[in-house]
Amino acid sequence: MIQTNASKIFNLVGAEAVLTEAADLRKYLTGISTSFGYVLSDENGSTFYTDTRYLEGATNALKGSEITVKKYEKLEDILKPYKQIAIPVNRTLYNDYLKFKSFGLEIVDSTPAFVSAMAVKEDYELALIERACSIADRALISLLDSIKEGMSENDVAAQLEFLMRKFGANGTSFETIVAFGENSSVPHHETGMRKLKFGDVILIDYGCKYGGYCSDCTRTFLFGDDKKHEDFKKAYASVLQAHNLVKEQVTCGNTGAEADAVARDYLKKQGLDIYFTHSLGHGIGINVHEFPMLSPKSKDVLLNGMVFSDEPGVYLEGEFGIRIEDSVTLDEGKVVSLTDTDRKLTVL
Amino acid sequence: MIQTNASKIFNLVGAEAVLTEAADLRKYLTGISTSFGYVLSDENGSTFYTDTRYLEGATNALKGSEITVKKYEKLEDILKPYKQIAIPVNRTLYNDYLKFKSFGLEIVDSTPAFVSAMAVKEDYELALIERACSIADRALISLLDSIKEGMSENDVAAQLEFLMRKFGANGTSFETIVAFGENSSVPHHETGMRKLKFGDVILIDYGCKYGGYCSDCTRTFLFGDDKKHEDFKKAYASVLQAHNLVKEQVTCGNTGAEADAVARDYLKKQGLDIYFTHSLGHGIGINVHEFPMLSPKSKDVLLNGMVFSDEPGVYLEGEFGIRIEDSVTLDEGKVVSLTDTDRKLTVL
Repeated sequence: MIQTNASKIFNLVGAEAVLTEAADLRKYLTGISTSFGYVLSDENGSTFYTDTRYLEGATNALKGSEITVKKYEKLEDILKPYKQIAIPVNRTLYNDYLKFKSFGLEIVDSTPAFVSAMAVKEDYELALIERACSIADRALISLLDSIKEGMSENDVAAQLEFLMRKFGANGTSFETIVAFGENSSVPHHETGMRKLKFGDVILIDYGCKYGGYCSDCTRTFLFGDDKKHEDFKKAYASVLQAHNLVKEQVTCGNTGAEADAVARDYLKKQGLDIYFTHSLGHGIGINVHEFPMLSPKSKDVLLNGMVFSDEPGVYLEGEFGIRIEDSVTLDEGKVVSLTDTDRKLTVL
Repeated sequence: MIQTNASKIFNLVGAEAVLTEAADLRKYLTGISTSFGYVLSDENGSTFYTDTRYLEGATNALKGSEITVKKYEKLEDILKPYKQIAIPVNRTLYNDYLKFKSFGLEIVDSTPAFVSAMAVKEDYELALIERACSIADRALISLLDSIKEGMSENDVAAQLEFLMRKFGANGTSFETIVAFGENSSVPHHETGMRKLKFGDVILIDYGCKYGGYCSDCTRTFLFGDDKKHEDFKKAYASVLQAHNLVKEQVTCGNTGAEADAVARDYLKKQGLDIYFTHSLGHGIGINVHEFPMLSPKSKDVLLNGMVFSDEPGVYLEGEFGIRIEDSVTLDEGKVVSLTDTDRKLTVL
């Protein structure tokens, strides 16, 4: 019988039964993507209750696994045998919590089990993320040749997303950010119709999904060197050095705050920390933002097998922004980059 | 001063202050897409609290509007002046609810105000949805010429998404479904590497976003007529007739159940209702699934200005599936289709 993560979570939680609805957690337990359903695990095994839209697909996908697929009927009936139920309390809506209470159930929090299990990737999960990252890398390399003056940010995003799809991605892991010129100084710029001009900075923050797992990468380029970019070039070198120091110095056992400080302290020495207006990074998996956080206040501990982003950046309002981001993993205490396109300043 | 939906919701709710965090509701209030922030409205106006990633963008976008943009600091401090706060209770997490209670606040539910305000579209919202729909139509028409034997489902999805982007979309409104042959019998098939063969059914369920609003459309084709498709053709004609009857008969004042019954009753007469395994439709707006529901049990009342899907379908497991879906609106009691590509059976 094929093991899934359902029994792993059941064993970690240690409650009479574990009920999971949230789409990302359901994907983690079943391995398949669905927009409706409940996974219920107890000492006898696991059942995936879903509706007619997914019954055929789920039954085929889970054949031979420890999870039985059944048509969803009524939550109250499914839960009748139990006195105690584990749910991810901090992901549960107020009304749903009250509903479980009204069934007379004792409620246990399954969140810590999910967070710790999902943060440290299994080999199969790492393989899916690696694949998503290599698809993204290949797409970016193909994209660069086709970037021409007069293209809009939207045109470039369209081409990049097309290439990721063509190379096997199932979709994007978040809305692609393409920012030209002064737009790059908005860390989460909304990709639009701004046209590319000679001398523009180009910032591209993008990712794809493969097998339900995400990649996340940012590169910053110059589109032609109009010789007006001395400040930009100096800042770029500093951001790249901050990015590289994280890769050299961060190791397992570090907190998210310690990792963040590696980049932030270096940028401070360069007088640039006031422009580093966000956190160093975040965990990556089924969700593009998950545990751990790498930020000035984060006590999250980095462990081997975790996947997270290393993304220092600086943003000079109305002038330019620079971000250099890789998806990385910790392997035997060393940071290994999963996205791996050229990081040195490239003039297109 | 430019009015936003913030004062509209504040007036509808009638509480001392209205606090909104959920991304879709925040987008509705501010008109801009952000991944973090709180909108707080009281009798003096509205403030959008967000972090440094969005401060510059939000400040520019909301210049001259009734919403002031401020850096988010601490929720407790922001809420100190109030005794009563409205939040969307059925969208609020259990822990967040407890937090608001711990501030000593009386809690009012803002959900009914959001549901009724968001369901009936303003002219500007309808214009954005119409644009999303016409981009989607144009992309599908361009796509059809390029569909060739041997392409994978993924290839077709990539091309379609590229075309939507090229024609101005900001992204997809959900994961594009392209299903070839027997895969079409899975209503929510996961687009994959299945290659297109002569005689295959092709089902494409797709949508894009424009200005933050969604389109949703499905078409089913035959890729070459291998003369083995009599059952398919008969079923196609029935689904199309069910789809058309909804457009002819549904009017404002109908419940979602009454609308659903128009299609379901017709398919029953054709002996096909057992294969119509999902609901007739759902509201469409900032979210691709929102109020109202058009399903056998829905008491939601359809009103002029609402936008929803008309999507009857039949699914014969392991054989084929057919779905014909338009995004439609009710205008002066008549159903008007916003997606508008050819619906008669097309053999590619």
